This record gives sequence, structure tokens and C-alpha cells, in this order.
Amino acid sequence: MTLLKFSSLEDESKQNPTLKGHKLVILTPSAPTPGYIDTLQKQFPDLIIEYHKSEWTQAESPFPIKQWKDVTIALTLTYLPQPKDAPKLHYVQLNSAGANHILDHPLFRDTEVEFCSANGVHGLFSPQISEWILLTYLAFNHRLPHYLDLQRQAHWSRGNVDSIEDATAKTVGILGYGAIGRQTARLAVAMGMKVHAYTLHPRPTPESRKDRSWAPAGMGDPDGEFPSKWFSGASKEDLHTFLGSGLDLLVVSTPLTPGTKHLLGKEEFQILYNSSPSINFVDETGHSETCGRTFVSNVARGPVINTDDLIEALETGLIRGAALDVTDPEPLPDGHKLWSTRNVILTPHVSGASTRYNERVLAILEENLGRFGRGERLVNEVSKREGY
Amino acid sequence: MTLLKFSSLEDESKQNPTLKGHKLVILTPSAPTPGYIDTLQKQFPDLIIEYHKSEWTQAESPFPIKQWKDVTIALTLTYLPQPKDAPKLHYVQLNSAGANHILDHPLFRDTEVEFCSANGVHGLFSPQISEWILLTYLAFNHRLPHYLDLQRQAHWSRGNVDSIEDATAKTVGILGYGAIGRQTARLAVAMGMKVHAYTLHPRPTPESRKDRSWAPAGMGDPDGEFPSKWFSGASKEDLHTFLGSGLDLLVVSTPLTPGTKHLLGKEEFQILYNSSPSINFVDETGHSETCGRTFVSNVARGPVINTDDLIEALETGLIRGAALDVTDPEPLPDGHKLWSTRNVILTPHVSGASTRYNERVLAILEENLGRFGRGERLVNEVSKREGY
Repeated sequence: MTLLKFSSLEDESKQNPTLKGHKLVILTPSAPTPGYIDTLQKQFPDLIIEYHKSEWTQAESPFPIKQWKDVTIALTLTYLPQPKDAPKLHYVQLNSAGANHILDHPLFRDTEVEFCSANGVHGLFSPQISEWILLTYLAFNHRLPHYLDLQRQAHWSRGNVDSIEDATAKTVGILGYGAIGRQTARLAVAMGMKVHAYTLHPRPTPESRKDRSWAPAGMGDPDGEFPSKWFSGASKEDLHTFLGSGLDLLVVSTPLTPGTKHLLGKEEFQILYNSSPSINFVDETGHSETCGRTFVSNVARGPVINTDDLIEALETGLIRGAALDVTDPEPLPDGHKLWSTRNVILTPHVSGASTRYNERVLAILEENLGRFGRGERLVNEVSKREGY
Repeated sequence: MTLLKFSSLEDESKQNPTLKGHKLVILTPSAPTPGYIDTLQKQFPDLIIEYHKSEWTQAESPFPIKQWKDVTIALTLTYLPQPKDAPKLHYVQLNSAGANHILDHPLFRDTEVEFCSANGVHGLFSPQISEWILLTYLAFNHRLPHYLDLQRQAHWSRGNVDSIEDATAKTVGILGYGAIGRQTARLAVAMGMKVHAYTLHPRPTPESRKDRSWAPAGMGDPDGEFPSKWFSGASKEDLHTFLGSGLDLLVVSTPLTPGTKHLLGKEEFQILYNSSPSINFVDETGHSETCGRTFVSNVARGPVINTDDLIEALETGLIRGAALDVTDPEPLPDGHKLWSTRNVILTPHVSGASTRYNERVLAILEENLGRFGRGERLVNEVSKREGY
């Protein structure tokens, strides 16, 4: 891993390699392996380490509130204490890539506590989420849901296969070219696709296109070499230029912030439709219709897309289909109209799940404890201004 | 495209660039575009070109038998005339990657007619089949069939996600490292996997690992750079060494020949199981069991695997799961036991389907007509000795 060295490294008063006086609480659904705790304890002999089981939906503190007074470091999923209860807290390591669920919490908004997300570093999310993106796109194009239906009926029938499409020479637009988008680009290029990248801030030079977060060797796009076109900006016009660039697949991998809420709605779906010749789609029964060419994949957060407008775009054929791991509302209520909207693949916010999840998030914590002890800047710090 | 020049090129008597005296019949389900026929006619002004609609299961000649007497070149799916009816036939372009369905036909067995398969050249099959391989592997690991069931029930439930696996650091073994296997390797490496390649003939040198068939720029593995280990041989021991190398995914992409029938059976599944620590598999309900680590993917032909042994290996957990685009028997009869075998994904021989299929097969025909006119060796010729 590249160590980012800052002037604070020179400030010996900030150095505390044994983490003397510090107390870490780990609040996750399953306990770290004993080997992990042992390793951490050897590395930071004066650190007090406590594990408390905590669920994804934890609303209450998993241990008595008054014990927060000595806690200096916390790894947590969703639960956060009030600032007055945790006066010594220095650093919160979030166990999720997104930070939107804590943006309004006073501990984030009103204090100097440093927050770090799990985004990107150590490929915590990017391998499995980029796999989910390609999986659902390929499933739609190769009609896997239809063939699984036939399998359930124990019936062999090829039907009309004339519109099964492969991804060769198609174009993917990636809205938010971060760790997930970069690994998605790597997979897309391997399949023969072209990549259009969109970032908030312009990336005009080779240097600016590099990714400072760590990626496993041979994965991601650390040098920004995969996109054939780069787009950027914060205005509607900028976004619309990108959406009009002829996209077969649009990957929504931008953080949810006040600026990205309902980023995609009626107007944007119309632009996707207008941007390129509509295609003739033939289903397995031979039924044919004209529709837009773009398939929309959302792995960010539900509210980035206006749900009602999305449903209308799918039903009217403005877009070709969609895969949604996140929805608005979420959980999606039983019987919600989106369940029965055509040409959509829905999964219950599982694209980030992986058997390697825990080992990866604990690796980030370990990395940041070391930086903390050396007085260095932490990796993946959430900007209090930009909210990600 | 690299032109393979042979001594026959020097033989001017074999040159006939306008294809004077030749008659081509194109026997496919859908007609080539008028533009294609025009292009072909301009390129080969003396060639007589006829199109006759012909289905995948065509058993009868799609035009009167006696008209075969003048045909010199045929593009066909399955129908072949008897040698006595087509005395002038020089070259048959098959519209499929496999050639096993014609190996016993007297036109192949007893004559000098040149047969070319559609395998590899112009990436006719490799893009979509490699996508199918990754699609079904990822669908199994990310539990897409289960989430599609929940979608049908209009019910949002994450369930137990602890065993959702990504492909990072896993190993794929590719049994038959041809055009399909090479593009599969490219995708696997992009996902962070390791590749073990198996070929009939040894590939000890960098030169021998190259692929002489054409692949689109940036696709396939023309230089043989992706495998970290190479295996080869025609004996059971050779195969077993490969199967024992610790495979998470086994891709069966070898042609069906007398030598590969029932290549994988009871003994081989046991070797896969023994080769590596068995893993603990937890399903979405939290149910846990120990099983082998290998997922088997068959895109070759059904009889390469012994079906009864495969069913037993799946039911007893010797292997973790399987994706089968081809089966034995095929079509798989309604109600066959394989339909309800656990941990299997079945599709009705559709992995090679693509909207680009026709344009790619016609591109091969065009390439080979040019070579034919110049007296050069054709691409993708089926060896009468090895049967592929």
C-alpha cells in the first residue's frame, strides 16, 4: 500500500505507536477471528480492544451508554453514540462504502471526529459489486431469468434466441468513476466494451485520472487507462452531455449526497432514449418492439433515481431494462409496483456481500490504526463538506 | 487478419479469384442481408450465389437433391448431401463450433471435401460463450436464482448473505484452451482469478502457447499470457493431474471426439473433491454443509460428462455446483432427474446465441472464399483425423 505521508508525521507529539490510552470497540454482526484480535494486540500492545455483537439495523448501543466515555476508536455499521456520551472519540471506521446514513448525525455534523468509509481500500466492495453489475447485465442480455423459469418447469425449449446479445463493442457509461467503477471498467474492457467515465471534478491530465486508493494488483484501474472518453461536472448540462454519449449500459455508482438525490429522472431517461437509435427488441416468444438501448444498473443508493420515473421509463420502453440492488423506498415493500415492472432485475441490497467482507474491513481498520499511531492521515476519510 | 501462406499459393493453377465455375449455397435460418450478398458478388463476380432457408434441425435438403450436382461450396448448419449427389463439392463451411454431428457422415468420412468449423475465427462464439460461463458462475456464487424467486414473490429479504462469494483469488481450470477458453481466461483474470490451462498437446514454449486463430483486438489470449500453469496430455493420469490442481471453477470447453466421451465421471469428481480442502457452504436460510469446492461448467457437448455420475456428485456434494448449457441426452426430456438435481443451472444450448452470430459466420465464409480463390489454406479446417 502506498503510504500518504503528511507533515503531521513529523509531529512527534502525535505519535503513539502502542496506542496507549486508547480503547477500540468493534461493533459487527460476527466476531473477528481470535487470530485477528491477537495480531492487533501484538501490534498495538497498549490498546484496549472490545468486541460487541451488533446488527445491521442496530438502533441502541450494544453496551451500556456510559461505557462510551473511554472509547477513542469505533468500528461500526450503523449505530453511533451522541457526542456528549463519547467525548474522547477520535476516529470512527464505518463498515459500509456509503456514508449517507450518518451525514445528519450530530457526531458527524457537529464534531471533529474523523470518519472513514470502507470504500475502495483493499478492494473491500469493488470486486463483488463489479461482479454483480456484470452478472445482472449479462443475465438480462442472455435471458437467464427466462431459462431459470424453464428449468423450474423441467422443460427444454430454445424458443426464439435471435435477440440474445453479447457485450462486444457495446458502451458502458460509469456515473462515478471510483473504486467500484474502475473494477467494472476492467471487466467491461475484457468483454470488448468501450468505457465512458463521469466524475464530479474534471480529470484532464493523466495524473488527475489516477486513483489514490489501493487496489489489489491487476484489478481496478489505478492509472485511469480504460475510459475512451471522460466526462465531468456538477451541472445538469454536464450530466446530460454524458448521458447523451450513446450508452448501452449505465452504471450508477455515485455516492448519495444532497447533490445526487434524484439525479436521474424523466428528463434523463428521455435523453438516454434520444441519444441513440432505438433498437428493435425481440423476446423469446418472437414478440418484437422498439425501445431505447440503455440498460440502467444501480448499485449506489435508491434515491439517486426517481423511482416513479424509472418505472415509467421501463414500461414505456424509454430504457431497455434495469438492475437494482438498491431501491427507494428500501426495503421495497411487499407488493410495490416496482416488483412487477417489466424488464427489471431486483436484489435486496446484497451486491456488497462477500465471504471476504470481514477480512477486508478489518484490514482497513488495521491499516488505519497504524496510521493513527504514527500520527498520519487516515485512508478513506469521509469529507465533512462533500459527504463522501 | 494474419494470412497463413502456404506453398499452394505459388501454384497458379489453383488461383481463381473470381471463383469462375463455382456455385455457393447458403443454408441458414435467416437470409444474409442484401448488402452482404452484393459485397460477395462484387468480390467474386463469377460466383453463383443461392440462399435457401434451412432450420437447425433440417433433415431434408432445402432444395431438390439433383441441384446439388453443381454446388461447389456450401454453408450449412446440419444438413449435408450424400457424396454421390454432390460430386463437385469442395468446401463445406459449418455454421457451428463443434463438428461432432458430422463426423460419421460419409461426406466427411469418405471424401476429400474440406470442412471448416465456425470455431474461434472472428470471435464467432468466444465472446458470448465466455460471457455465459462467467454469468452462470457468478449467478451461482451471488445467488441470483434465489433472488429472482424472491422477486417473483414480490418480497424483499436479505436472508443469510454470509456465503455470497466473489471470484477474487479463486482458480479456474480450462479443459481445452481454445478460442472460448482463452476469452474466458481474459475475463477470469480481470476478476482477479488464477488460470490453469489444459491442452491435448504440450505447450512448453512461448511460441507453442500462441493462438493462430484470429481474435478481435484486445480479446482472447493470442499470446497465451494468462495461464499461471499449463497442463497437457491424452492419458487419464495427465487429466487427473490437472483436475487435482485445486480448481474452484472447471470449464469444459473441449471438443467432443471419441477420445473425450465420458471424459469426466465418478473418478474425476472424486479427484476434484480430494484435491483441495472441502469448504463449508452456508445457504440463504443459514443451513450449512461441507462440500467440494469445484463448480463445473459445460459449454462443450453433453456426452463429455457422464450424466449419472454428475448427478451423484452434485447430490452428495463432491462438487459444489454445475452450469450446463449442454446435456446428455439433449434435448433433456421433460421430467429428467437432472432438472431437479440441486445446485445446477441449466440452459437449452443457447450459450452460442448472439445477435452478431450471422454477421460473424458470414465473415468467416467471406474470408475463406477469398482464400479459396487464391488457392490458400482455409481457416478453421476440421481435421479428419482428430475430428475437430
